[in-house]
Amino acid sequence: MALLKELISVDEAIRRIVSTFRLDLRTTYVNIENSLGLISAEDVVAPYDIPSYNKSVVDGYALRAKDTYGASPSNPVELKVIGEVDVNVDPEEVPLLKPYTAVKVATGSPLPKGSDAVIMYEDVERLNDKILVYKPLPQWANVARVGEDFRRGDLIVSKGTVLGPWHIASLASYGFSKVLVYERIKVVVIPIGSEVIKPSIPEPLRKGVYDSTSYLIKSFLSIKGYFNVSRLDPIPDDLSIIRSIISKALESFDMVITCGGTSVGERDLTYSAIKDLGDFTPLFRGVAIRPGRPVSAALVGGKLVFMVSGFPVAALATLDLILMPSIKLVLGVKEIDEPVVKAKLVKRLVNVVGYTSYFRVRVFRCGSELCVEPLRLTGSGILSTLIRGNGVVIIPPNVEGYDVGTYVKVKLIGPIL
Amino acid sequence: MALLKELISVDEAIRRIVSTFRLDLRTTYVNIENSLGLISAEDVVAPYDIPSYNKSVVDGYALRAKDTYGASPSNPVELKVIGEVDVNVDPEEVPLLKPYTAVKVATGSPLPKGSDAVIMYEDVERLNDKILVYKPLPQWANVARVGEDFRRGDLIVSKGTVLGPWHIASLASYGFSKVLVYERIKVVVIPIGSEVIKPSIPEPLRKGVYDSTSYLIKSFLSIKGYFNVSRLDPIPDDLSIIRSIISKALESFDMVITCGGTSVGERDLTYSAIKDLGDFTPLFRGVAIRPGRPVSAALVGGKLVFMVSGFPVAALATLDLILMPSIKLVLGVKEIDEPVVKAKLVKRLVNVVGYTSYFRVRVFRCGSELCVEPLRLTGSGILSTLIRGNGVVIIPPNVEGYDVGTYVKVKLIGPIL
Repeated sequence: MALLKELISVDEAIRRIVSTFRLDLRTTYVNIENSLGLISAEDVVAPYDIPSYNKSVVDGYALRAKDTYGASPSNPVELKVIGEVDVNVDPEEVPLLKPYTAVKVATGSPLPKGSDAVIMYEDVERLNDKILVYKPLPQWANVARVGEDFRRGDLIVSKGTVLGPWHIASLASYGFSKVLVYERIKVVVIPIGSEVIKPSIPEPLRKGVYDSTSYLIKSFLSIKGYFNVSRLDPIPDDLSIIRSIISKALESFDMVITCGGTSVGERDLTYSAIKDLGDFTPLFRGVAIRPGRPVSAALVGGKLVFMVSGFPVAALATLDLILMPSIKLVLGVKEIDEPVVKAKLVKRLVNVVGYTSYFRVRVFRCGSELCVEPLRLTGSGILSTLIRGNGVVIIPPNVEGYDVGTYVKVKLIGPIL
Repeated sequence: MALLKELISVDEAIRRIVSTFRLDLRTTYVNIENSLGLISAEDVVAPYDIPSYNKSVVDGYALRAKDTYGASPSNPVELKVIGEVDVNVDPEEVPLLKPYTAVKVATGSPLPKGSDAVIMYEDVERLNDKILVYKPLPQWANVARVGEDFRRGDLIVSKGTVLGPWHIASLASYGFSKVLVYERIKVVVIPIGSEVIKPSIPEPLRKGVYDSTSYLIKSFLSIKGYFNVSRLDPIPDDLSIIRSIISKALESFDMVITCGGTSVGERDLTYSAIKDLGDFTPLFRGVAIRPGRPVSAALVGGKLVFMVSGFPVAALATLDLILMPSIKLVLGVKEIDEPVVKAKLVKRLVNVVGYTSYFRVRVFRCGSELCVEPLRLTGSGILSTLIRGNGVVIIPPNVEGYDVGTYVKVKLIGPIL
């Protein structure tokens, strides 16, 4: 396998993961209250019609529509009121309505059998135990009919849906208290590099660099409720240590993400370390993405090892554009997209053709519209783009760049101030 | 206080909450790893410059820029290479560079004192312990200078920020392992109504209705990491039970949300129940919002009791348009907005002037653009709009409606299929 020489495209990288990686997540029933953000592992269909009986949608009198045919102001129809049906009456116990009778109903009351329309209070004249109807009513006037809202068998939640408030409420509306979901994807993030230091006290380092990338990866994935992300402290550039820690991690996690140790230098050992583990399937080593080019992936014992750069923005680009789309495809996840705005470029954006580029940008209000300014990506500016940026512009490999004044799509990752 | 007669505007409702309700949340230091979605309770400023020392951004030779002035291809400057500085050398221990000497450096190496530029390997000729420089270098060429990325005192995270992956990574980059956050807002949701049944087995009810609204409210708020939401099972329409449960809840929660029991009917007791509790401050009773009009709010002992409709979409409208904006203002929360798209109306939307309307809609792709279709809001269609809709269109009170073909803003609450 080529070492960063023949870079594959982002699409090809995704294709290789999706065509080989199987996530065999266990399924479990959880209380709907605890299902927010988890992925439904089943199609849930409506177990019965809603409404499950014909009901009135107004306060008035239930009657037989055909009894009113021919009614007019000069020739009203007279119906005998034979009773009243409350909202809380069992629909099975509602009596049969005979010709030329009516029953008082409230909004939500089950309709007496035999009746097929409801006339509103204000449209009739009441005389002792009778009402006078001055106009004909069409069949099913002011009635919510059985199954009008949902038919038995209609899909309420489809398999792969990330459960949101609306799904949970819909399930509850039917009386469901539990839903079958996938267990969360267990991921461990392992920062690699002898120079990488765990944050403790905010003091300038005399040597090395604080680990920020493993925190970025953990929190980025944790936004999704269907991940369960752990993080290890940095491990040194030592082939046997890297090998034994990844090997151990593969026993208890569905997926391993390493950061650091991915470019081709003497101290970059991650790929070499895992290559010798049993049941190794290389997927790719290097992708035409900027930043993030040295990203690699392999399956070890069928589990995904995703190796990203130690630089935070580079790691982010590869997670956002390669790993997340792959996992969603592997699991068939249906989910709302991240917020996107269109904004006017105030500085040129130049792409290296052949690469998918991931530009950190700052979106701000300018007059009545939104403007967007690219932030530099290289060298020491990495930290400030994390803080000062609030969006990302993605340029596909076949585009040379965008001129000043172009309206571009910006994926928002922070508020517009 | 008027009973739904004089409705106030959504803006006025928010103003009344924000001007009276104080959320005195405790603050606590948490590990940055556990701070995702919480609200920063402090301004965090850069405790030192980054870079904290001048460093090379290329592989090459550190030198004194002025030694190269006058250099040219025909008249190169000769510098003596007196050593090498590795990336991991303590910047304090890097030696002083004397005139007409150079030191080999790598990307990231601290610059020797006295040097102020770096020339790249490929731009020099090496002859034993000397290099030949053929061009003058400007001062600070290929150098990342102290504080270039961040100056000591620059704001990294401001108070009120909802902490996202970028903030967490930025804090880690400085060596911070903890951050001061507000403790989560403790909310309890209490469904009220003798007809309201807790979901258990999905069977049609012979009387009453399954509680879905309390599940909707709990999950809607739980999307935000800064809420800690509990839910009670439905309580009956009994003045003394309602009073005692709300009174008890106020002891342990920052906020109480009731659903059901808000419209003005004989069985709607929530407002009456809490009116007699001590230290009662009415805020409003009824807001010009559709659906959701009977929404009420009051302070009891300084804590907010927010009373919403038992109908899920009505509850949602008032939470989304009144409660959430109020809480964000009360706490000064800075947060990314929900995703919004522009889509073309395929059916007319009619507003009742004077009301803020909250229309459930379905957004779908039509040709190369997005179209949006309103879903009916009334009667039995409530459940199906929860499932079939993926967005919301909000019409302000001064707008009569939108015609077919108008492009409207849609707040997305589900994926576009």
